[in-house]
Amino acid sequence: MGSARISDSGEAVLTILKITEEVNQLKDVDTILDKILHESRKFSGADAGSIFLVEDDKLIFSYVQNDTLFKKETANAALYQNFGIPISEQSIVGYVAKTRQSLSIDDAYELDPTLPFSFNKSFDQKSGFRTTSMLTIPLIAQESRLVGVMQLINAKSDSGAVVPFSEAAKTFIPLFCNNASVAIERGIMNRELILRMMQMAELRDPSETGAHVQRVGAYCAEIYGTWAARRNHSAKDIKRTRDNLRLAAMLHDVGKVGISDAILKKPAKLTDEEYSIMKWHTIYGARLFRNQTSELDRMSMEIALCHHEKWAGGGYPAVPLANVWDEDPGLGGYAMNGEIIPLSARICAVADVYDALASPRSYKDPFPDEKCLGILEKDAGTHFDPEVVEIFMEIFDVIKAIRDKWTESSGK
Amino acid sequence: MGSARISDSGEAVLTILKITEEVNQLKDVDTILDKILHESRKFSGADAGSIFLVEDDKLIFSYVQNDTLFKKETANAALYQNFGIPISEQSIVGYVAKTRQSLSIDDAYELDPTLPFSFNKSFDQKSGFRTTSMLTIPLIAQESRLVGVMQLINAKSDSGAVVPFSEAAKTFIPLFCNNASVAIERGIMNRELILRMMQMAELRDPSETGAHVQRVGAYCAEIYGTWAARRNHSAKDIKRTRDNLRLAAMLHDVGKVGISDAILKKPAKLTDEEYSIMKWHTIYGARLFRNQTSELDRMSMEIALCHHEKWAGGGYPAVPLANVWDEDPGLGGYAMNGEIIPLSARICAVADVYDALASPRSYKDPFPDEKCLGILEKDAGTHFDPEVVEIFMEIFDVIKAIRDKWTESSGK
Repeated sequence: MGSARISDSGEAVLTILKITEEVNQLKDVDTILDKILHESRKFSGADAGSIFLVEDDKLIFSYVQNDTLFKKETANAALYQNFGIPISEQSIVGYVAKTRQSLSIDDAYELDPTLPFSFNKSFDQKSGFRTTSMLTIPLIAQESRLVGVMQLINAKSDSGAVVPFSEAAKTFIPLFCNNASVAIERGIMNRELILRMMQMAELRDPSETGAHVQRVGAYCAEIYGTWAARRNHSAKDIKRTRDNLRLAAMLHDVGKVGISDAILKKPAKLTDEEYSIMKWHTIYGARLFRNQTSELDRMSMEIALCHHEKWAGGGYPAVPLANVWDEDPGLGGYAMNGEIIPLSARICAVADVYDALASPRSYKDPFPDEKCLGILEKDAGTHFDPEVVEIFMEIFDVIKAIRDKWTESSGK
Repeated sequence: MGSARISDSGEAVLTILKITEEVNQLKDVDTILDKILHESRKFSGADAGSIFLVEDDKLIFSYVQNDTLFKKETANAALYQNFGIPISEQSIVGYVAKTRQSLSIDDAYELDPTLPFSFNKSFDQKSGFRTTSMLTIPLIAQESRLVGVMQLINAKSDSGAVVPFSEAAKTFIPLFCNNASVAIERGIMNRELILRMMQMAELRDPSETGAHVQRVGAYCAEIYGTWAARRNHSAKDIKRTRDNLRLAAMLHDVGKVGISDAILKKPAKLTDEEYSIMKWHTIYGARLFRNQTSELDRMSMEIALCHHEKWAGGGYPAVPLANVWDEDPGLGGYAMNGEIIPLSARICAVADVYDALASPRSYKDPFPDEKCLGILEKDAGTHFDPEVVEIFMEIFDVIKAIRDKWTESSGK
């Protein structure tokens, strides 16, 4: 140890330590990938980058950023592509995954033809982007588990020219990636934990599938991102709230475990009395978040409680948050409407109803897009927050990309 | 950035980065506290240390290590003490929590009497320990949230003499503590998430309380620690497995959500047919861990499936792990006994039965210690793994400390 003064050349490592701390604040895997890629690009001046995660012995395209092609901080359908690359020496990311060594390439179009891998030009050809320098790094967690591969593209000099990646980038980003890999594993596990809570609900009510909650979580995250960008919230605040909202929205119906089989599984229409018992799933759900250790808990409670409230009033349970713990919270006794309903719940209401309309049910086929959007538009201002519906229409291409990513048969 | 070479004086920060990576592998809050304290003591040469966590505006004593007083790696009742210190200037930890500044003291018995705080000698008087040098550090996560306070005691020189804490310790340990605080928050949240899954089960079966699962988790962790120490497993392996076992054991009955109300809530004895349906809670529980992303998932599945198996055979469901996903897994069709039953489940069986015996039920008072131990002893070799029962007896003082820490009225 010796001297306690941190030398100037230790500053880079200190920076990594600080970023690691920030990454570890995040819970959802997508927000973690976004942060890791963003910080690595900032550190290296890279114009673009993507992350591939290992799933079933393949590298699945999982996250992308590209300052030239995509506007920042707006909803982006490219994030929800589903494609995989084998872990083999033919592709650059496959080669890095296989050898577990970082690889820096100064110009992807000038590769030595004796190398085992080649550069796949199809993305450039489709998009008009010109890939030049690349830094590709394996993401390895402890006990040598390969989590995935990060690829940074087109380092830029201060003047904006594309240049090879610096020695500093090649030294320090792989160092950061060790901690980043652990964070990614944790993010995957968090989403699994939440899905598992939903599987518990699914054991009781098979319409609550994992794919449904994944979609509703992603719809809510994207709607919120656009809502907050319209208000010029800071990128950091947007990311943190979106991170919590996505997971919290997945838990919107978790309180259904508290509803008796006779009502939950009734194959016919509920009587008025049964329906008034069914409404309690919002209270039961909210009560699960009594020990609030985080913003995620607070938001989960809001959504569980209020996702059946209506913008113009007349939804349920119409109970203020403070009454949830009362033995008789007084369902229907509170004027819950407009902006009194938490934003998270107003967003989730639209996402949840849309997903029911657009999904098959035992008694109906999925409705076509126009019918779904027509219903949302008709109910904007009565059932739904009109601005949330407006944003939903605006980002409908992203909504469709999400719908295609998690289909009922995709399992998770 | 400049040079890509990591200077010698950057090495300390690199070490912190490496330890941060290891800490972030851990999931349960107790294992995280153990690791943070252990590494901080190693870095500073401290003989002892403890961590206090903030709860309801008080500092709750949450973890302790003391090489002079306690043998390493064995079960220790001192870990399960319940006491709190106000966040005020009168005590050293309270002062550090209040001012949020690290405080280094060369001799606790030679404090300037004009200081607002004084040293509480009662622990030294009771134990015969002599506290001299102290380094007390606030644990602060992002957005300035105070998570707790770590106190390191008696730095030792190479010759074993107690000396003041070094400048290096005062510089680098607080740096590590930023990341450590984030990890602690995460650990607390993980335990809350698991408790929440159990609360979902509790919505259906009120005998599955949060206190019951906390106790069963802690009993299992301590039994396992002694079992593995007997076999000279490495401290690192013991910690990691104990970390997983504690959380996995908390989920042993989570499959009960899949059992219908008519059976789960029946106030009378179950018929044979009902009982054979009830046995399915082991299968339902195991099935929740289909997407196995970690060792924790694998262990949760083992315990959910096998915690009602018996050492000499004749338990249930008597289904091999591979059959769990089959529509008809063939309950009772497999010779599940002895060491075919996973160790985690053999440990959980003893912990779960003991907790039922020692707890009040609607139809009985808690049994006295002798009666509980008599039953376990009688059933060792038939129902229970005899070595697990033997270890349970050996560490019964720790078991009692756990029982006293989480009582039904303590809530969580």
